Amino acid sequence: VARQHPDGLPASPKPGPKLRPGPKPGPGISFAELPSSEVLAAYVGMHASEFLRALRLRDEDEAAAARVLRRSARRISAALHTYEPLVEAAWAEQLRSELGWLYGILARDQRCAAQLARLCAALARLASVDSGDQVHSTMAIGAARAGALLERQLTLARTRARSAALQAFGSSRFHAVADSVTLLASELPLTVGAAAPAPQVLVPLATAAHRRLAEAVQALPLPKAAYPYNGHARRAALVDLPSQAHAETHAEAGAAGGADETQDAPWHRTRVLVQLSRYALEVLDGMARPPDDWPNAARLREAAGALDRHRQAADASTAAACAARTPRITPATAYALGVLHADQRCEVEAARYAFSRLWQGTVSG
Amino acid sequence: VARQHPDGLPASPKPGPKLRPGPKPGPGISFAELPSSEVLAAYVGMHASEFLRALRLRDEDEAAAARVLRRSARRISAALHTYEPLVEAAWAEQLRSELGWLYGILARDQRCAAQLARLCAALARLASVDSGDQVHSTMAIGAARAGALLERQLTLARTRARSAALQAFGSSRFHAVADSVTLLASELPLTVGAAAPAPQVLVPLATAAHRRLAEAVQALPLPKAAYPYNGHARRAALVDLPSQAHAETHAEAGAAGGADETQDAPWHRTRVLVQLSRYALEVLDGMARPPDDWPNAARLREAAGALDRHRQAADASTAAACAARTPRITPATAYALGVLHADQRCEVEAARYAFSRLWQGTVSG
Repeated sequence: VARQHPDGLPASPKPGPKLRPGPKPGPGISFAELPSSEVLAAYVGMHASEFLRALRLRDEDEAAAARVLRRSARRISAALHTYEPLVEAAWAEQLRSELGWLYGILARDQRCAAQLARLCAALARLASVDSGDQVHSTMAIGAARAGALLERQLTLARTRARSAALQAFGSSRFHAVADSVTLLASELPLTVGAAAPAPQVLVPLATAAHRRLAEAVQALPLPKAAYPYNGHARRAALVDLPSQAHAETHAEAGAAGGADETQDAPWHRTRVLVQLSRYALEVLDGMARPPDDWPNAARLREAAGALDRHRQAADASTAAACAARTPRITPATAYALGVLHADQRCEVEAARYAFSRLWQGTVSG
Repeated sequence: VARQHPDGLPASPKPGPKLRPGPKPGPGISFAELPSSEVLAAYVGMHASEFLRALRLRDEDEAAAARVLRRSARRISAALHTYEPLVEAAWAEQLRSELGWLYGILARDQRCAAQLARLCAALARLASVDSGDQVHSTMAIGAARAGALLERQLTLARTRARSAALQAFGSSRFHAVADSVTLLASELPLTVGAAAPAPQVLVPLATAAHRRLAEAVQALPLPKAAYPYNGHARRAALVDLPSQAHAETHAEAGAAGGADETQDAPWHRTRVLVQLSRYALEVLDGMARPPDDWPNAARLREAAGALDRHRQAADASTAAACAARTPRITPATAYALGVLHADQRCEVEAARYAFSRLWQGTVSG
C-alpha cells in the first residue's frame, strides 16, 4: 500500500525525476580521490539547472514551476550554508539571502492553500462526528460558517501572495537572482581549500551539520513528547512509562499542556536543521559508506515529514485562533474555530510524538 | 511518590479503612470447604454494615457519608447481580433497582462537582499557554467567561442534585431501602444451592462475569485505540505500528476521528462490566489461587480508573458543548468552550489509549 501524506497535501515539493550529481566515483576512481569542489559544484550545478528549467516552464505550468523553484532554491541555499568554507563567503551569503527572499514569496501561496485544505478537512472530520442531536448541532452549524470564513480569509491571503509573486518575477531583484543561479549552473566561485579530497573537507562539514542538529534535538523535551497524550490525562497514561521518564515527565509537565504553543519555536528550528542535514547528505550521495554516527537518510526524511506536519498544524491552529478574532462572528462559528484550534494543537502534539519516537528509535542509531 | 488521581478529584469513593469479609479459610479450614452462602453473606453483610454506619454518620460529615453509601450500594448491587443464582431472584432484583435509584441520586451531586473542577482545571491549563499576544487573548478572555458560565450552570445542577438527595433521604422509599440493607447485614435470603462449596458455585459465576467483560472488550476497537493519536495525524504516527494493526487502523479510521463521540456507549458499558468483575473478585478475596484465565485484581482496578476518566472526560466535553448553546454568549466564550470541548475529547482518546494498552498488556495475562 502506498504511503499517503497525512493530510493529503503536497507538503513539500515532490522529488520529481531522480537526478544524480554529475561526478560519481566511476570504475577506477574512488570517492576518496574526488576533489571536494567537484562534488559540491556537481550538486549545486544540478539544482541550478533545475531552477533555470523551471523558470522556462513557468508559462506552461505555474504551480509545478513554483514547486521546482522552491525545491532547488532550498537545496542550493542549504549546500552553500553547510559547505560555506568551500565558497566565497560574501558572495554565498548574498545569494543565500536573495534565494531566501524568493523562496519566502513562492512558499506563501502554497502554504495558504495547504492550510486551507488542512483546516477544511479537519472541520469536515469534526463535524462528521455530529450525532445529530441538539448538543452537537452547534458544531455542525458552526463548522460550515467557520469553513466559509477561513476560505474567505485564506483565499484573500493567497491572492495577495500570488500578486506579490508575480511582482517579484518582474523585478530587477529577481533577474539578479536568476543571473547568479545561471552562473552557478556552470561555475561555482570556490575557495582555495576546495580542491582537497572530499573526505578531508566535505565529510567534516557534513558531520558538523549533523552535530548541530543533534544538539538542537538534545534540547527538545523528547522524553516527554515521546510519551503519548503528554498534554492530556498525563498521569493516566503513565502506566507503561519507565520510571525515569516518569519522574521527568512529572517534573516538566508543570503548568502547561503537552504541545505548548509557547514552545513551538525550538521545534521549528529543529525542522530547519533536519533539512540542512538532509541536503548535506544529498551532496555526498556518492559516498560508499557514511560514518557510523551520521543519521540515516531515509529516517531523516521521515523526521522532516513529522516536523513539516508539526509546522503545518501549528500554523493551522494559529489561523483558527486568528479567524476567531474576526469581528461580528456568531458564537457557533467561534465555537467551531475553538474546536478546530484545539484539534490542530493535538496534531502538533501528535507530530512531536512521531518525531520523538522516530528519533529515539533509529535516526541516530 | 504517591500516585495522584489524574484530575485531583475523588472520582470513586476512597477505599477507607480496609475491611475483610468475615469467614476466611482460617488454620485448618480451606477455602474449598466453605459454603458459598457464607462467603457471599460475609461480603454483602460487611458492605451492608458500612452502609448503615454511613447513614448514622450523615449529620457529622455528609460528603464522607455519601461517598461510603455510594461505595457500599455499588458493591452490594454488583454482588447480588453476579451471584444472583444464590439469592432469591425477585427480592434481589427489587433491591438492586432501589439501590440503583439511591446511587443515582447520590452520584449526581458528586459528578457535577467533579465535572466543574475538571473543566475549570482544563480551562486554566488551556489559558496558561496564552502567550500574551493578540492572537491568544481571545482564549484568555473567553476562558474566564466560559469558567464563570460553567460554574453557574454546574452549581445550579448541583444545588438541584442536593435538594433531590435531601428529599430522597426523607422519603419512605429510602426508608424501605435502609430496612432491606439492615436485613442484609444480618441475613441474606439465600436459595437452596447456596450451601454448595465456593469452588462449585461462586467460581463459575465469577468466571461468567469475567467472560462477559472479555466479550465486551473484544467488541471494542482496541487495536486502533491502543495506537496513540489515532484521531490525529493518523498516518504520521504509523511509524512503529505492526503491519497488521496498520492495515486495520487504515480500514477503520475512515471518516471520523479517534475518540468518536457516537462511539462512547460501548466504552461506558465496558466500564460497568469492569466494575462487576472487580467486585466479583472482591467477594472471593480469600481464595488462595484464582484460575489462570481470571483478570489480575490490581490491573482491573487500573482499567476501571482509565474507564472512569473516559466517562468523566466524555461528560465534561458534553457539558462544554451544552454550555456553548446558552443564548447570548459572546464569541470569545464560545471559542473557549470549543477549545475545551476538543481538549476533553482528546482526553477521551487518551483514556481509551490507556485502557487499551493496559488490557493488551497484562490484565488478561
